[in-house]
Amino acid sequence: MATLSNPIKVLVVNGPNLNMLGKREPEIYGRDTLDDILSRLNEQAQNLSIELDCFQSNYEGAIVEKIQESMGNVQGIIINPAAYTHTSVAIRDALSLHSVPIVEVHLSNIYKREEFRHHSMVSAVATGQIAGLGAQGYSLALTAIRNMN
Amino acid sequence: MATLSNPIKVLVVNGPNLNMLGKREPEIYGRDTLDDILSRLNEQAQNLSIELDCFQSNYEGAIVEKIQESMGNVQGIIINPAAYTHTSVAIRDALSLHSVPIVEVHLSNIYKREEFRHHSMVSAVATGQIAGLGAQGYSLALTAIRNMN
Amino acid sequence: MATLSNPIKVLVVNGPNLNMLGKREPEIYGRDTLDDILSRLNEQAQNLSIELDCFQSNYEGAIVEKIQESMGNVQGIIINPAAYTHTSVAIRDALSLHSVPIVEVHLSNIYKREEFRHHSMVSAVATGQIAGLGAQGYSLALTAIRNMN
Amino acid sequence: MATLSNPIKVLVVNGPNLNMLGKREPEIYGRDTLDDILSRLNEQAQNLSIELDCFQSNYEGAIVEKIQESMGNVQGIIINPAAYTHTSVAIRDALSLHSVPIVEVHLSNIYKREEFRHHSMVSAVATGQIAGLGAQGYSLALTAIRNMN
Amino acid sequence: MATLSNPIKVLVVNGPNLNMLGKREPEIYGRDTLDDILSRLNEQAQNLSIELDCFQSNYEGAIVEKIQESMGNVQGIIINPAAYTHTSVAIRDALSLHSVPIVEVHLSNIYKREEFRHHSMVSAVATGQIAGLGAQGYSLALTAIRNMN
Amino acid sequence: MATLSNPIKVLVVNGPNLNMLGKREPEIYGRDTLDDILSRLNEQAQNLSIELDCFQSNYEGAIVEKIQESMGNVQGIIINPAAYTHTSVAIRDALSLHSVPIVEVHLSNIYKREEFRHHSMVSAVATGQIAGLGAQGYSLALTAIRNMN
Amino acid sequence: MATLSNPIKVLVVNGPNLNMLGKREPEIYGRDTLDDILSRLNEQAQNLSIELDCFQSNYEGAIVEKIQESMGNVQGIIINPAAYTHTSVAIRDALSLHSVPIVEVHLSNIYKREEFRHHSMVSAVATGQIAGLGAQGYSLALTAIRNMN
Amino acid sequence: MATLSNPIKVLVVNGPNLNMLGKREPEIYGRDTLDDILSRLNEQAQNLSIELDCFQSNYEGAIVEKIQESMGNVQGIIINPAAYTHTSVAIRDALSLHSVPIVEVHLSNIYKREEFRHHSMVSAVATGQIAGLGAQGYSLALTAIRNMN
Amino acid sequence: MATLSNPIKVLVVNGPNLNMLGKREPEIYGRDTLDDILSRLNEQAQNLSIELDCFQSNYEGAIVEKIQESMGNVQGIIINPAAYTHTSVAIRDALSLHSVPIVEVHLSNIYKREEFRHHSMVSAVATGQIAGLGAQGYSLALTAIRNMN
Amino acid sequence: MATLSNPIKVLVVNGPNLNMLGKREPEIYGRDTLDDILSRLNEQAQNLSIELDCFQSNYEGAIVEKIQESMGNVQGIIINPAAYTHTSVAIRDALSLHSVPIVEVHLSNIYKREEFRHHSMVSAVATGQIAGLGAQGYSLALTAIRNMN
Amino acid sequence: MATLSNPIKVLVVNGPNLNMLGKREPEIYGRDTLDDILSRLNEQAQNLSIELDCFQSNYEGAIVEKIQESMGNVQGIIINPAAYTHTSVAIRDALSLHSVPIVEVHLSNIYKREEFRHHSMVSAVATGQIAGLGAQGYSLALTAIRNMN
Amino acid sequence: MATLSNPIKVLVVNGPNLNMLGKREPEIYGRDTLDDILSRLNEQAQNLSIELDCFQSNYEGAIVEKIQESMGNVQGIIINPAAYTHTSVAIRDALSLHSVPIVEVHLSNIYKREEFRHHSMVSAVATGQIAGLGAQGYSLALTAIRNMN
Repeated sequence: MATLSNPIKVLVVNGPNLNMLGKREPEIYGRDTLDDILSRLNEQAQNLSIELDCFQSNYEGAIVEKIQESMGNVQGIIINPAAYTHTSVAIRDALSLHSVPIVEVHLSNIYKREEFRHHSMVSAVATGQIAGLGAQGYSLALTAIRNMN
Repeated sequence: MATLSNPIKVLVVNGPNLNMLGKREPEIYGRDTLDDILSRLNEQAQNLSIELDCFQSNYEGAIVEKIQESMGNVQGIIINPAAYTHTSVAIRDALSLHSVPIVEVHLSNIYKREEFRHHSMVSAVATGQIAGLGAQGYSLALTAIRNMN
Repeated sequence: MATLSNPIKVLVVNGPNLNMLGKREPEIYGRDTLDDILSRLNEQAQNLSIELDCFQSNYEGAIVEKIQESMGNVQGIIINPAAYTHTSVAIRDALSLHSVPIVEVHLSNIYKREEFRHHSMVSAVATGQIAGLGAQGYSLALTAIRNMN
Repeated sequence: MATLSNPIKVLVVNGPNLNMLGKREPEIYGRDTLDDILSRLNEQAQNLSIELDCFQSNYEGAIVEKIQESMGNVQGIIINPAAYTHTSVAIRDALSLHSVPIVEVHLSNIYKREEFRHHSMVSAVATGQIAGLGAQGYSLALTAIRNMN
Repeated sequence: MATLSNPIKVLVVNGPNLNMLGKREPEIYGRDTLDDILSRLNEQAQNLSIELDCFQSNYEGAIVEKIQESMGNVQGIIINPAAYTHTSVAIRDALSLHSVPIVEVHLSNIYKREEFRHHSMVSAVATGQIAGLGAQGYSLALTAIRNMN
Repeated sequence: MATLSNPIKVLVVNGPNLNMLGKREPEIYGRDTLDDILSRLNEQAQNLSIELDCFQSNYEGAIVEKIQESMGNVQGIIINPAAYTHTSVAIRDALSLHSVPIVEVHLSNIYKREEFRHHSMVSAVATGQIAGLGAQGYSLALTAIRNMN
Repeated sequence: MATLSNPIKVLVVNGPNLNMLGKREPEIYGRDTLDDILSRLNEQAQNLSIELDCFQSNYEGAIVEKIQESMGNVQGIIINPAAYTHTSVAIRDALSLHSVPIVEVHLSNIYKREEFRHHSMVSAVATGQIAGLGAQGYSLALTAIRNMN
Repeated sequence: MATLSNPIKVLVVNGPNLNMLGKREPEIYGRDTLDDILSRLNEQAQNLSIELDCFQSNYEGAIVEKIQESMGNVQGIIINPAAYTHTSVAIRDALSLHSVPIVEVHLSNIYKREEFRHHSMVSAVATGQIAGLGAQGYSLALTAIRNMN
Repeated sequence: MATLSNPIKVLVVNGPNLNMLGKREPEIYGRDTLDDILSRLNEQAQNLSIELDCFQSNYEGAIVEKIQESMGNVQGIIINPAAYTHTSVAIRDALSLHSVPIVEVHLSNIYKREEFRHHSMVSAVATGQIAGLGAQGYSLALTAIRNMN
Repeated sequence: MATLSNPIKVLVVNGPNLNMLGKREPEIYGRDTLDDILSRLNEQAQNLSIELDCFQSNYEGAIVEKIQESMGNVQGIIINPAAYTHTSVAIRDALSLHSVPIVEVHLSNIYKREEFRHHSMVSAVATGQIAGLGAQGYSLALTAIRNMN
Repeated sequence: MATLSNPIKVLVVNGPNLNMLGKREPEIYGRDTLDDILSRLNEQAQNLSIELDCFQSNYEGAIVEKIQESMGNVQGIIINPAAYTHTSVAIRDALSLHSVPIVEVHLSNIYKREEFRHHSMVSAVATGQIAGLGAQGYSLALTAIRNMN
Repeated sequence: MATLSNPIKVLVVNGPNLNMLGKREPEIYGRDTLDDILSRLNEQAQNLSIELDCFQSNYEGAIVEKIQESMGNVQGIIINPAAYTHTSVAIRDALSLHSVPIVEVHLSNIYKREEFRHHSMVSAVATGQIAGLGAQGYSLALTAIRNMN
């Protein structure tokens, strides 16, 4: 791995219903709340000289604007678009404004679920994807972005 | 991350043409050879108390048999099925013999390439996927498997 | 029908453009405004010992959040997702957080309209559907939920 | 609701295998027999000044002819075409001879079952649909037809 | 093969136009009439302590009712749905009422004929299929059912 | 035209709901009843030394059997399968038993109606088709068969 | 049939390669040349007080212009668009300029040939179709148009 | 062009990410910001006695509401739905409330881009479309609406 | 708008049946003839220092050759390919010989018409499209080309 | 059954992962190993004067070659292509070299499993198929081949 | 190669826009004009005792007629249908009049271009295809036809 | 043709079942064995200063490795992938490692055979294709490669 000297900032975007994590279908997503996950991610970030900007919204428009606003201010994006993964051209377009590394994360293995969840509007404008590895997907994404800066 | 006390064994399978890494379309796959990548992965493995069993073949049948033979002997599988990702029911069936964590890795972002590369026969029987993050995809997969054991 | 002794609470969600009811294509939707319909529904509800929580929004995100917030507080949901019927995975995911009866209502017979209106993202997570029966669809849905509690 | 003074007659058609209700997959359809359901429906009908003409057949041709014969004699039709829902152009054509309200009823939520059950040949010529609400679907349909006369 | 002590009863259903066997396209179906085939099958059945109940109809409804009536009275079903193979949801639903072994038989290899004959509505609710082996398909099906009881 | 010396027999089959002709959607099918049409056709037939055998049924199975029974007894078939045009493999199979000329007739232009009416299961086993020319389609079909004998 | 007093004019259009009739695949189209067929058709026309305007071209544009020019001058159109049946929007648009009866004729049964020949661009703007009845299809079409004027 | 005496009001709606114009993929959209474009459009509007009401939002719901609110207040609508072009039934439904001229504008030629951008949910309820002509598309749309009032 | 000093030449191509404008389906295309439209366009052209070369043909080949011949002689092309829009690869290939601005014009909103009219073979090689705005579409196209030179 | 005098030889081919039978998803395939099944099959074969040549491979190429080599040496083939059923054109081509009876066997009912398992590349070149009847499928296939020689 | 004694005649047909060769997208088609290519081909033909009849047209109808006229006069056809490759049933039908060898030639590799260029209407009636080898494709085709005579 | 001074080496790859040439479906492939064909090809090669490296395998993996090994050692590749044409991504990927001319050869016209043979995975990475010209396809390919070096 690269030497982690330079401090960077990473945007972490979570899409609709992820604020309900830990309360919903725990057999799929586990019992951790989003706060639990992000607080562990913050610890890891500090060790990697990364400042996190965490954002969750159930509004497609709010996610679009957050991504727009972070333009020029972050060196990487971790995004779990949740339900908007499969339908949002707007989030895709917003992400394509950036030239920093973008990692798309899904907690569950979307290929084991309903067929409409197998296609992502976002994948083609992201750098890479991590899916099916639960909450540690965020952690791996952070490592990956650190190594790409 | 979990404390890494118990030693485990992980099978690393690489599919057709990956033996040509570093010689082929470097703008997509980078200049590292497969040996370069696996030797770095071995270093990481030792630090994580993991023994690697690395295997590459251009034969679908050979990959099927390697996966069969590792049944009961490994605690995790990392597989980059390469071209067989999109066509091999036989590798899918072999992987479904296992109940250990399986991480499917792709060096490139397959969603930016030809449409026939967007579908994987393997994804539905794997635990998770990592794609588009280059050679470090193997490293992240190893971390993920370590954390799941 | 069941004896209606126990008081329950039912969430009534109306999606985009339903605030324009009575002003739009009356040959399809009739001349009643949404207020007219809901005020009649409230009368029926009181007779059935049901408290209604009525909500309309043109924002997908707002509908998602209303459904989230009602979790644990209602014993049934009536939802007319209107235009979001055909596109919203986010509303589907929010509804799947609930284990109470959910009745999907459409004023018009969506099978007589454009083909893209024939498919609903919500149907597979609802208990049942009522379509094409105009404003009384809400009333029938309320009776159905009363009978299921 | 409208004042229920004028007596009307309603045809209730049940398609193939519904004569086996209560004997088949009770987890989907409940334990009521078709006789149980129709006898309760008859009680409700009397209260609403409605005379029911109930008909069940496993023959597509017999259902077609019953619908033809009722032309001019009934003020509404409730039809659960069961298996013929998805395949019968003949029943669709027979129903289109009528100009009275037609309510298509399905006991189960057909959108949670096999994909071929998601499409109905009948929906586009019916007034409306009620699905997934079990035996009370017939009762709601009867109320709806009463209100439309 | 299992010892054939316990006597069982097996329903043999033949669908539309099979009463014309021996008179129609002999290059595909051979010169045997249905009576020839069933009389040979009866001989085999007696040797296996099996009582056959043979039924042929050109009416989908009649086939549905025969299957319904045999419920609880037979220990196996052999069905050649002929033309209804490809279109009948009603026969599929009737068969799914049974929990005894069901073997779907086709005289010809349906995969060598028109494309619409490649799909069977019945296969997913049958235990197994035998196709393309001519009249002996019935005989093999009988052996199979004997071995499953 | 050929000299019409030899007497022949022609089967005229009409499918479901055609017994309702003249009572249904007159803007599409005209005001003639089926009896009106067939009685005019009989007059024409006598002039052409043709004996007609006219048959109408709403039952697929009955149509199949009528076609079977006419085998060897008729020198031509005129069939308007109506709703069964689009779904009946059984009628197709029965027709393919014959080697006499078969003319498929449709009163309306099926290509101006719903898309599912554009495909006929019967066309590939008929000699020819006449569609959209109203009741005279039968008359033209009779002339055609006369000329082919 | 109607009394044939009033003289009318009918345009007869034949599309590409029909000038080769009698020289090409006689097992499908017979040995008659186009001249043979049209000369017999002219005889029939005279008996029916019809003047024919016969036109053949291998150019889509020429057929379009012939149809345009006949606007207002003919009381019916018989068209065998041959290969342009399946591809020509231009001929379809030209035909839709007319409000006189249009009969589409095909010599062979196009539903027994390659799949791309099963769809006609012209059918939806024609009055009716006659197919598979060989050269007499023109004769039947002429009778039909005579009866519609 | 028509004489431009009567003053009218035109709603100009811009969808998600168009607030980033000039900052994003300039090779496709040019270097003008949305403000630059709208300020030039305002100049043109004044010359044409048109008052503009310009609105941009990244929220589908906000766009829906703006269109609703303008009902009865404007004589024309220019809309560039951007990413929502391809997915928003809600905006389509809101636009269909209006009976004034609606012109859909796209800066780039959407037929040269990804396939999912070739289909517009809005086109069928708009009066017309202008695409691929850059910022002057708005200007042409304004001229068109002026000419239609 | 740009200062219109330099004189340019623009090719205006109209496809099949547009010579019938004003005589055909006036509710869709208006009562103007093509001459009316082009004569108004010529007036506008003179004001813009543009020389028009107007061409109409019903022959795909003639349109191809006109486009070929204009290569190097015009600074812009306005083309309404009419029926050839949906089928002509040859016109597409001819247009792709040019590097001047090409504007595709459709009088009607093709997205409100039959589905086969929704796809254009030409769009991907044109600069832009104007549809549904009637005859003024040509005028707007001319303005656009003027501004691009 | 036929008198079994003449000795014949039958090739029995098993495809990828069938060497793992008894170790994998026993709820689908049972607990028998492939050796168990083939040893029982050998007993039956001896009784039928049949010599078996049993072959299993995980390599598509090896299966192709085994089929090639048996050409002229066997009087029948039983093949369970397992995963290669759905993808191998090469095995299909090799089988089509033979003119002896070929029976395709599947242990499980492939029509109850994932959709990609519903289609077989091999079926159209086999004589017939036996599926879903477990290990006795091989035994029935052997009987069938015996009866066809 | 065969001894080239007998003189033969070969038709060489070039479709739309090939007259522009050398002026259009030279990176795909090279800088040779059609005349350059055909003059070299004529030299080769003379050496092979072949007389060439070269024809180019942008009109589908003209190509159809040229092919018709050559019937019986040529011993082979080389055709590059260019844009008509993908759409012309008429050229296919004309070619199927011939029983001489027909070689379809494409200068570029059509499988590397737009998807609609991957399908040829002509291939199924040609003897063979040569694509992607540039102008020498004609030369190879000539050799092939020489060897087949 | 180019002067053939410089000696080059060409790899000739033949896929599965081509070792059976001359023994299989001679009406399609002729009676020549692969050895016959390659020995004639060798003669031609010597005349052209070409050294051939001929390879046949029924194993996809072996073909992949042969192609890999020839990298840098050959100046051209002739490949007839046979059955693997339609399914092998691995061979496609191996071929894309090369930058020398690659000619795909098929003995038969694959467009006259089953539909699944119409698509080639290899075409898009080859330089060109020759199909349907029998064994001389190899010879033409050799000439083409000679001319490209």
